[in-house]
Amino acid sequence: MESWRNRKTLILGRAEMVGLLTPDEYNDRVEHAYRMHGEGRYYMEPKGHIVLDKYPGEWEVMPSYIEEPEAAACKWVSIREENREKFELPTVFSILIYTHPETGFPLAICDGSHHTVMRTGAAAAVSAKHLARKDSKVLAIVGAGNMAEGALACCNEVFDWEDVRVWSRSRATLDEFVKGQQPHYDRFEIKTSTNLEEVVRGADVVVTLIPARGPIVEDAWISEGTRVAAVGADKEGDQELDPGILGRARIFVDDLRQCRTDGEINVPLREGIISEDDVAGEIGEVVAGKLEGRTSESEITVFDSTGFALQDSATVPLEYERALAAGVGIEKKMIST
Amino acid sequence: MESWRNRKTLILGRAEMVGLLTPDEYNDRVEHAYRMHGEGRYYMEPKGHIVLDKYPGEWEVMPSYIEEPEAAACKWVSIREENREKFELPTVFSILIYTHPETGFPLAICDGSHHTVMRTGAAAAVSAKHLARKDSKVLAIVGAGNMAEGALACCNEVFDWEDVRVWSRSRATLDEFVKGQQPHYDRFEIKTSTNLEEVVRGADVVVTLIPARGPIVEDAWISEGTRVAAVGADKEGDQELDPGILGRARIFVDDLRQCRTDGEINVPLREGIISEDDVAGEIGEVVAGKLEGRTSESEITVFDSTGFALQDSATVPLEYERALAAGVGIEKKMIST
Repeated sequence: MESWRNRKTLILGRAEMVGLLTPDEYNDRVEHAYRMHGEGRYYMEPKGHIVLDKYPGEWEVMPSYIEEPEAAACKWVSIREENREKFELPTVFSILIYTHPETGFPLAICDGSHHTVMRTGAAAAVSAKHLARKDSKVLAIVGAGNMAEGALACCNEVFDWEDVRVWSRSRATLDEFVKGQQPHYDRFEIKTSTNLEEVVRGADVVVTLIPARGPIVEDAWISEGTRVAAVGADKEGDQELDPGILGRARIFVDDLRQCRTDGEINVPLREGIISEDDVAGEIGEVVAGKLEGRTSESEITVFDSTGFALQDSATVPLEYERALAAGVGIEKKMIST
Repeated sequence: MESWRNRKTLILGRAEMVGLLTPDEYNDRVEHAYRMHGEGRYYMEPKGHIVLDKYPGEWEVMPSYIEEPEAAACKWVSIREENREKFELPTVFSILIYTHPETGFPLAICDGSHHTVMRTGAAAAVSAKHLARKDSKVLAIVGAGNMAEGALACCNEVFDWEDVRVWSRSRATLDEFVKGQQPHYDRFEIKTSTNLEEVVRGADVVVTLIPARGPIVEDAWISEGTRVAAVGADKEGDQELDPGILGRARIFVDDLRQCRTDGEINVPLREGIISEDDVAGEIGEVVAGKLEGRTSESEITVFDSTGFALQDSATVPLEYERALAAGVGIEKKMIST
């Protein structure tokens, strides 16, 4: 018998999770998660939500199992829109439990905040790699918070951007973003604007990161051949894009069961503006080679990303391995017989 | 502004969770959870399950929010039936995250194993208090593992037992149970048997704790006036009782949405032996005074307990308070801005 009775669990806070993987490695792991999804080699229910009227935001619970490399994980996510101003806390954070599949043992309990920023940024990047025009040069990021940092870092790995634009409602947020992020990039100057049309018009790839409750990106701003990744909408009623864009686009989703109720398509579906027949398929089918992605240079492609739990179980094993090698975090005996 | 930026999370392993509350306090908290459930003052989806053919057992994910005392929690449970013999690990264990409702901050991350044993035992005890005959003297516990320890400790608080009987297939398990548990009780001698009929016949209260895949308790063994708590069945296809018992009984469940698919009633419902009209109601309605429990001395009552997440969010705040007061566990900075 291989005794596990004295095993400890590795506990990793946010500071210890930062930098364990490169943006390129996050892209690779998320692409792998999409591939496994496309091949059906996983077990995952759609995210669970707890939404309370009294606290703007929600909780999400995200359990999953992935066949290869075999792993299970569960993430409990807190989203509280008033956290920054009221409590000096992040808007979105989470605790991620990485579980050994055969024994069910919790190998690691991690802050999932940085991990989520990066694997969400990787969703934008990997989908751009598969759905954007090969000659894409102009990137527009709608949002300038943590998620935008991850999106820029990961998208930087998949195209040689010449023009990078970032939008926020707040000039101060934009200035802070440039101050923190420009030093990491020397191939382009990050341009910022509080005028959304200015940022979006003419972009080859648009990444939207706002949990908006109604369309903010207008149809008229999106020209032929553009590829839009709608990452911000991830609960019922959320919407970032004018449905006219969906009407003109080849639409991909990350997980149809989840997007149907929580994704960018949830409102247009409910209102009958589009039907599920208008959805070309899931990104995993494209990555697995089962479904054609972009079919022409002039086509508009939209990727509706709600973010799914498989992105976590595909990524956390490598983060854990690196943390062990680096000797970061603390080991604690959680389980005893 | 009340800044939370330097707050730490309390990490509690199993050894530190043991003994924070008395069995009586677990009963009180679980009764409160049932009351809040009966009054609709909570938010909870049915448990999520991940079942893999290759590893007998499952994972369960249990998020919930309770209005008073206001709290949220998420428990990620591993059940692996071969763990004891293969890895010297418990069959059932879990990680429980206790979350501050307004900020979403993880106040504590705990081993949930002892907690679950006790709050599950409390489910058996509280339901006995409400559904068993007032003069109950004979307790039969079907199962002799960890869950049986919790059931005995909690049931001991609600009736003056004169005859306590415990069943297991294994003589060694029974001997170990008596050796560990008898020293805690001086009012009765724990009788054990590997003959299930001998243990069940004549009992006033029967608590079944076996995740059996078919009926093990026969109809003929259950006499009028008995009260059965079926606690072991908690996933699709599980069943402990001969459906004939259900046919003769007034049936209560903990959460109908959950029991419908996972509880003792799931197989009889699917096979059409009973219908949902045969279910009198939920235990919370009884505790909240909205529904009559036992209606006569001769009635058989069955309580189908799958265990719900609200039992966790109702209990963990008090465990946390006691752990802080005792200075146990370690504090770790998990979240940073």
